[in-house]
Amino acid sequence: MKKILLLGAGRSATVLIDYLLSNAQTHGWHLAIGDVTVTHLEAKLQQHPQTRAFAFDVQNQEQRITEIGQAEVVISMLPAQFHPLVAETCLALGKHLVTASYVPPAIKAMHPEAQAKGLTFLMECGLDPGLDHMSAMRIIHHIQRQGGTVTSFKSFTGGLMAPESDNNPWHYKFTWNPRNVILAGQGTARYMEDGTYKYIPYPQLFRRTQTFQVDGFGFFDGYANRDSLSYREPYGLQGIDTMLRGTLRRPGYCQAWQVLVALGLTDDSYPLENPAHLTYRALVESFLPASSAALPLKERVAAYVGLPATSAELQLVEWTGLFDELPIGLEMATPAQALEKLLVPRWRLEPGDKDMIVMLHQFEYTLNGEQKKLTSSLVVLGEDEVQTAMAKTVGLPVGIATRLLLEGKLTSTGVVVPLQPDLYEPILAELETHGVQFTEREEESASAF
Amino acid sequence: MKKILLLGAGRSATVLIDYLLSNAQTHGWHLAIGDVTVTHLEAKLQQHPQTRAFAFDVQNQEQRITEIGQAEVVISMLPAQFHPLVAETCLALGKHLVTASYVPPAIKAMHPEAQAKGLTFLMECGLDPGLDHMSAMRIIHHIQRQGGTVTSFKSFTGGLMAPESDNNPWHYKFTWNPRNVILAGQGTARYMEDGTYKYIPYPQLFRRTQTFQVDGFGFFDGYANRDSLSYREPYGLQGIDTMLRGTLRRPGYCQAWQVLVALGLTDDSYPLENPAHLTYRALVESFLPASSAALPLKERVAAYVGLPATSAELQLVEWTGLFDELPIGLEMATPAQALEKLLVPRWRLEPGDKDMIVMLHQFEYTLNGEQKKLTSSLVVLGEDEVQTAMAKTVGLPVGIATRLLLEGKLTSTGVVVPLQPDLYEPILAELETHGVQFTEREEESASAF
Repeated sequence: MKKILLLGAGRSATVLIDYLLSNAQTHGWHLAIGDVTVTHLEAKLQQHPQTRAFAFDVQNQEQRITEIGQAEVVISMLPAQFHPLVAETCLALGKHLVTASYVPPAIKAMHPEAQAKGLTFLMECGLDPGLDHMSAMRIIHHIQRQGGTVTSFKSFTGGLMAPESDNNPWHYKFTWNPRNVILAGQGTARYMEDGTYKYIPYPQLFRRTQTFQVDGFGFFDGYANRDSLSYREPYGLQGIDTMLRGTLRRPGYCQAWQVLVALGLTDDSYPLENPAHLTYRALVESFLPASSAALPLKERVAAYVGLPATSAELQLVEWTGLFDELPIGLEMATPAQALEKLLVPRWRLEPGDKDMIVMLHQFEYTLNGEQKKLTSSLVVLGEDEVQTAMAKTVGLPVGIATRLLLEGKLTSTGVVVPLQPDLYEPILAELETHGVQFTEREEESASAF
Repeated sequence: MKKILLLGAGRSATVLIDYLLSNAQTHGWHLAIGDVTVTHLEAKLQQHPQTRAFAFDVQNQEQRITEIGQAEVVISMLPAQFHPLVAETCLALGKHLVTASYVPPAIKAMHPEAQAKGLTFLMECGLDPGLDHMSAMRIIHHIQRQGGTVTSFKSFTGGLMAPESDNNPWHYKFTWNPRNVILAGQGTARYMEDGTYKYIPYPQLFRRTQTFQVDGFGFFDGYANRDSLSYREPYGLQGIDTMLRGTLRRPGYCQAWQVLVALGLTDDSYPLENPAHLTYRALVESFLPASSAALPLKERVAAYVGLPATSAELQLVEWTGLFDELPIGLEMATPAQALEKLLVPRWRLEPGDKDMIVMLHQFEYTLNGEQKKLTSSLVVLGEDEVQTAMAKTVGLPVGIATRLLLEGKLTSTGVVVPLQPDLYEPILAELETHGVQFTEREEESASAF
């Protein structure tokens, strides 16, 4: 009986749990699931023998040691900041670990010891990071095996809404941690273009978008991720001229978000004075110069950000309720926290809502002296507001990787990211059976991008 | 023989040293001056008995204890980050301390112990902070003694160039730490206007200026300081509707600086890739989107920031050399460090250059049911590039306060800021004998500001 411990059973774990349950009996797995609350799991687990759900507090060292001590593989879907703590305990007790999050320095430092102990700490094995690595590396390795050289690689991913559920003017709802969406892009984005290092400061980020088209799904705007450069070496693309990773939104979103950024509403660095006594309308006033003119607020915001009051951007901002006499209702709040509270109910998935994951890779490479272009795209649609495309594309790679690990098919040890064929080949192959399939297209002419 | 220890003998200490030397014999003071290098002081001190200059390393605990142990009053003109270390030793050895810098939390925490030991740690006793507090408090106390209520207080200070030495298109040269000028305003400026808290994010700061006029000296633009709010309570202005502190520049400076901010050139949060192999022209390119058009760099920058290429802003930016094939020549540099290296030689005081300090206070108050306005302004001109107005207005208040302390005329103990009459009255009175004199004007009609 192989014991799996899953820590974290939130929104993005639904499909992972179903995958693990559907495989448990065949493979003789015991599954234990710990989270702050697990009442929502009890009905589901009753139908499955050899499963257990329990209230888990990651900060409780005794419980952490007891539970991890009983497992063979630990999957952590907890918020990323808890992974070092979980990894430390896994290291001490000799347990494998799988997560869908970036490798933090604290876990990177565990590589030699994990390797010495024959442990696999498989990180970045979800959607982004995860599926992006795997699908890109399959193409990069294919080009390199033919003797080609990749000169340009752009990769964009977005968690969006399926066309049938895309019913608000931002064309966006939260399928991921809302706070991370509010704070997205803060810092300076760094990438390479035509052999030159490029930097985009946060205040310019959402006006520096690129437009893409996906057959059957229309247009998308992509903005640059903070770090496009650190994957050059892991991807084996050290000498590449252009490398850019980014995030997709529907057209209109970035332009309107830029208004919120320019006002200062995404700032998380200081607490507002007296937010409990403020309305959103008054909060917007706080970011504008005092005005003796009796112009409506919307017009003053428009003038401040240099747009017409009738522009689509201002319509989207107005739709959020920011211009309304709506109490913030928080005792303590940064501007970003106040904005999050406003947007959460407006961008909430409704029952039956279907989300959509879009991933796009654009390669340029030289092969036998010829310039070539290759695009690879993925669209995954959610089934409803629980079985989301997000939960599917994050959870399935984690689940499949866990299976490979338990079957002894994953032999790399230490801190591992799914860049090598022994990982990406079986995971991508099994994903295709779940409808997660990339479409590749060679282009001879100038790119449509 | 009263012993004074002066730590830090840099640019802003020249006038302070002269003041202390000119008073030493009359008052029977011994003056010891420690700094990283003091060779520039030796000739000057030779003419003065009972003085001593020595190489000083603030991190050397033994030397710190020995030197502070011999003094009665310690004046620290070291960079502000060293003040807690100096204050700690003063506290342990029972010595008074005078500085021209803001009270950091570490020193604030020493208040009870300093008070218990009968020590005076007089902080914020230079120009800004210092003279701004003293001159404002004299007016605030005067209004309050008459029974008036201050409803609005705006205060701006600038370290600029005297008209005869104002010979570059930015109308600015460094009379203060260049790094602090480059990083000025980062974070979010907070102030109050008409009873509303106002926030200005850094990317908007240099376009949110106010214009002021000073008789005989023309126009100035003021931008908000990061913190205008924390002085409400110390100033006794808790219920005030409008409170704004800021920095003055000559018209044109802020608008052009805004271009550098928008490009990302003042960012100090990350190191550039390969700055040793970059020119400033290439650095500017790094902040622009890749362009297939063969437009000149200046035109692309202008389009990016939404200004005509022929605008004054672009002329000022071009003047710095940013568009030139000029090597950065630094092995490691943030964008802000690269910009500092470019500007230091261009904004350097030339022999004979005279600087200028401008301070402006604007009060609105009610008295006997009437609305009143009062403005107070100060202009101090430097004598040359050494005896600067900056050195005078920073050094004299420190020197005078030290004299008061040694004469037993300053009896407040603990951590003290010069907000009370026993401090500001004698200091302001003696400053007038040095030509540092405010001009006050009551205004009945609408403010010219």
